[in-house]
Amino acid sequence: MTSGYAQPALLVIDVQQGLDDPALGVRNNPEAEANIARLLSAWRQEELPIVHVQHNSVEPNSPLRPELPGHAFKEEARPLPGEKHFTKTVNSAFIGTGLQDYLEEEGITSLVIVGLTTDHCVSASTRMAADLGFTAMLIADATAAHGRVGYDGVTYSGEQIHRVNVVSLDGEFCRVLTSDEILLEIATTGDG
Amino acid sequence: MTSGYAQPALLVIDVQQGLDDPALGVRNNPEAEANIARLLSAWRQEELPIVHVQHNSVEPNSPLRPELPGHAFKEEARPLPGEKHFTKTVNSAFIGTGLQDYLEEEGITSLVIVGLTTDHCVSASTRMAADLGFTAMLIADATAAHGRVGYDGVTYSGEQIHRVNVVSLDGEFCRVLTSDEILLEIATTGDG
Repeated sequence: MTSGYAQPALLVIDVQQGLDDPALGVRNNPEAEANIARLLSAWRQEELPIVHVQHNSVEPNSPLRPELPGHAFKEEARPLPGEKHFTKTVNSAFIGTGLQDYLEEEGITSLVIVGLTTDHCVSASTRMAADLGFTAMLIADATAAHGRVGYDGVTYSGEQIHRVNVVSLDGEFCRVLTSDEILLEIATTGDG
Repeated sequence: MTSGYAQPALLVIDVQQGLDDPALGVRNNPEAEANIARLLSAWRQEELPIVHVQHNSVEPNSPLRPELPGHAFKEEARPLPGEKHFTKTVNSAFIGTGLQDYLEEEGITSLVIVGLTTDHCVSASTRMAADLGFTAMLIADATAAHGRVGYDGVTYSGEQIHRVNVVSLDGEFCRVLTSDEILLEIATTGDG
């Protein structure tokens, strides 16, 4: 990387085993974890900043309670020693954590956002990133959502929920990219 | 109202004339403004707290820039003298405003949220309300969204965007109610 380039941090949200709980519904984007692994690998190779966020649920029935096995990171997203790691108890990675202070101290102004799930913690965190003044890039194929039956009695698939949530974020809160596109941008900037 | 009851504030977000700009797309829920007017009328009659939020856009092409006519409140949602009024420059009503401090000072712990638009400022504000520890109720027929073409080239109607965004908020960040349902709750609580 060229020094002086505003280095985008990879913000990896809640890639935890408990989100495979079948009670949460059928998910879209089964390739999300493989894409997250590719991005982590590229960020490590380029020595760009990485921030891992892990959900410590305080909900009685959540598989993400810290004492449960589902709290653990998925293999594809396990932090390496020395990588920055925040825990949170609500959806937004910016509430009750030191994330904003850390990014400002490090001079990090742009975030590449991946993880789970699109419409809950990823959307909440992307919205706050933008509203707090960070440049946010959302990697649509490195995030995923669960399907469910809505308040209106209609069944929505994970793919429908994912896509509409990304559409709602796009342009207003972030730029939407694929994993291939951001990898190309990183590589190009690094060469420059 | 019974004194000592934790009085829910009506949070009215961005009901401004500029959001009728045809460039924003075709909207759903044409009855949203009439429902907002009914809710405001009930809140005033019950002397429950009301908070008006108005967007002061800093975007070059936004119809909500303070110097433009579109910045004005719609007739149905015009604040009365003495009602609380915050202005904001980003999507969330909690960022860059005194809203959180005001609610805490007033002992207000629950919010009934209405306004425009479902997937942008309403969703961002509802998410933060919940993440900051407030009890949030979203009145689905007193909010609305614009249709648009997505990042995926697919055209989404305002109704589709509205519904999926409400589905994503429901249960995770808020309870979803109709205007009739919340009016009944308010009346019942007031009688008790």
